[in-house]
Amino acid sequence: MDARDENLIPSTIQWCDGVVRLIDQRRLPEELVFLDATTVDELCEAIRTLAVRGAPALGAAGAMGVALAASRGEDLVEAAGRIVATRPTAVNLRWGAERALAASDPVAEAIAVASEDAEANRRLGRFGAELVPGDARVLTHCNAGSLACVEYGTALGVIRAAHEGGKVTSVWVDETRPVLQGSRLTAWELARLGIPATVLVDGAAGSVMARGDVDCVIVGADRIAANGDVANKIGTYSLAVLANHHRVPFYVAAPLATIDFECASGALIPMEQRDVEEVTTFVPSGVSVANPAFDVTPAQLVTAIITEAGVVRPPYGSTLASLVSGPG
Amino acid sequence: MDARDENLIPSTIQWCDGVVRLIDQRRLPEELVFLDATTVDELCEAIRTLAVRGAPALGAAGAMGVALAASRGEDLVEAAGRIVATRPTAVNLRWGAERALAASDPVAEAIAVASEDAEANRRLGRFGAELVPGDARVLTHCNAGSLACVEYGTALGVIRAAHEGGKVTSVWVDETRPVLQGSRLTAWELARLGIPATVLVDGAAGSVMARGDVDCVIVGADRIAANGDVANKIGTYSLAVLANHHRVPFYVAAPLATIDFECASGALIPMEQRDVEEVTTFVPSGVSVANPAFDVTPAQLVTAIITEAGVVRPPYGSTLASLVSGPG
Repeated sequence: MDARDENLIPSTIQWCDGVVRLIDQRRLPEELVFLDATTVDELCEAIRTLAVRGAPALGAAGAMGVALAASRGEDLVEAAGRIVATRPTAVNLRWGAERALAASDPVAEAIAVASEDAEANRRLGRFGAELVPGDARVLTHCNAGSLACVEYGTALGVIRAAHEGGKVTSVWVDETRPVLQGSRLTAWELARLGIPATVLVDGAAGSVMARGDVDCVIVGADRIAANGDVANKIGTYSLAVLANHHRVPFYVAAPLATIDFECASGALIPMEQRDVEEVTTFVPSGVSVANPAFDVTPAQLVTAIITEAGVVRPPYGSTLASLVSGPG
Repeated sequence: MDARDENLIPSTIQWCDGVVRLIDQRRLPEELVFLDATTVDELCEAIRTLAVRGAPALGAAGAMGVALAASRGEDLVEAAGRIVATRPTAVNLRWGAERALAASDPVAEAIAVASEDAEANRRLGRFGAELVPGDARVLTHCNAGSLACVEYGTALGVIRAAHEGGKVTSVWVDETRPVLQGSRLTAWELARLGIPATVLVDGAAGSVMARGDVDCVIVGADRIAANGDVANKIGTYSLAVLANHHRVPFYVAAPLATIDFECASGALIPMEQRDVEEVTTFVPSGVSVANPAFDVTPAQLVTAIITEAGVVRPPYGSTLASLVSGPG
């Protein structure tokens, strides 16, 4: 199935002869077109305007931004600073830029970051699929698919792997206001993969759970603190409370690069506030708008965290650390 | 304040010399224009397309529809049947039509239904304002304002009365997908009334509660079952679970006409599924969409129900009945 799947959804971000080639996600689902960033400025603009988004994809973007600067003979540290400043919440952007900065060959390192991400997602997909029950109706939020990564997907990677194993009946897709990554991107991916999907407004997720039609929730993450608190797209926290109330398992799928061991808890994760124009289409003048891009889901609402190194459960303070320290 | 307020927001629905004059809510907040329904068909179309919506306003619309048929010499029972079939969840539509049907002068009765609604909302606003703490940050969903009623509002009526009493600091307004009654209608009303308001995407309500910035939630209702279960705009149930989780009081404000004593519990309330085109703006082909218009909030998640006859608390099975049976 994998080979066919890759034809259906090309790589989100690739290094192509000195330019960074991106799927322009602002144009989906209407058309699948690529955008070539030839300078660090062009790449920063693509990140800011969400032409490329999703924590793992931003890891590759951070590394490739430094590679771009290197291939143009520019100051690498200055370039890394500009790239990391575009989006404050996803830790992967900084992680990717730092990997390329520390390498003797930033271009080769950026290519390695991308190929490792694709491999990590396949591995975490297999681990996560074991958690999915048979005939599962899975609910997901935002887009943690191939488009949020280099390839395959994190939360959608788990759903793909479970679907390939015959375990997924259907997927509930939160439309995910304000930017509608659910209805625009996740629904597009699931349609291309032939996985049955139904889009819902975000407010409907609770009543779908109440009538017993959700077997598990699987979401991605923009940053996971050392204690297991999860920063992800606004609305994730509400979903976690609702899943908890209905005793529906709430799983977070993310590569290890998303875990920020220097960040003790979710309270310390910077929360991006985005332009209110993403929300204001119909808001009359004289009314203010808040547009928080992310929220924090406390570790106690997370049933398990799925990574490419395995699945961990509470207490996350020790189990997350064990993923990277190796067997003691 | 009342006199000035009424100039700011005209009556939602009025009987004017043989026609039903409505604020055309499809055109708000861009422009405040009126729509004259001169036939039952025109009124049904206005109800179906949400030119007029909101349970109490639909009560007046039901009565005025029968009045229209009467003034045109048409079959009243047949007209009432067509009107009631336009929206299945709000019980007020049937209640209003039945009041006009049972009256010797349907036109006079329809006018009475409308003026009683306006008076009931002012009364329930005063009762509800007593529940609102000082310096309150109140969160509301959808539109349960003047535009959902004949005048003044139910949930927004409570907020207006509490604001007039100096108790409301600000209002969080859920944008309320898919039709955006929050950002289009509630925000418009609050701006006209000079009450500070901030619009949020629906998914953000949980994290605003988590950081302690919501003192109470107040919503309206489309139908309240005899046991206190509340049918209201999709997303209300999720809000109630979130409020419960954060120990934030969750109040429902509704006129007595919204209580359906013949309906034992929420499971028996018909739930309208609306046209998926309200949601599909960006959904690619090959993906299905569900568009439930309402959900049911179980009585145990409702802190109190505010009516024009007073405020009741659990057990609703007896306290709701006491509102209409009078002192025993």
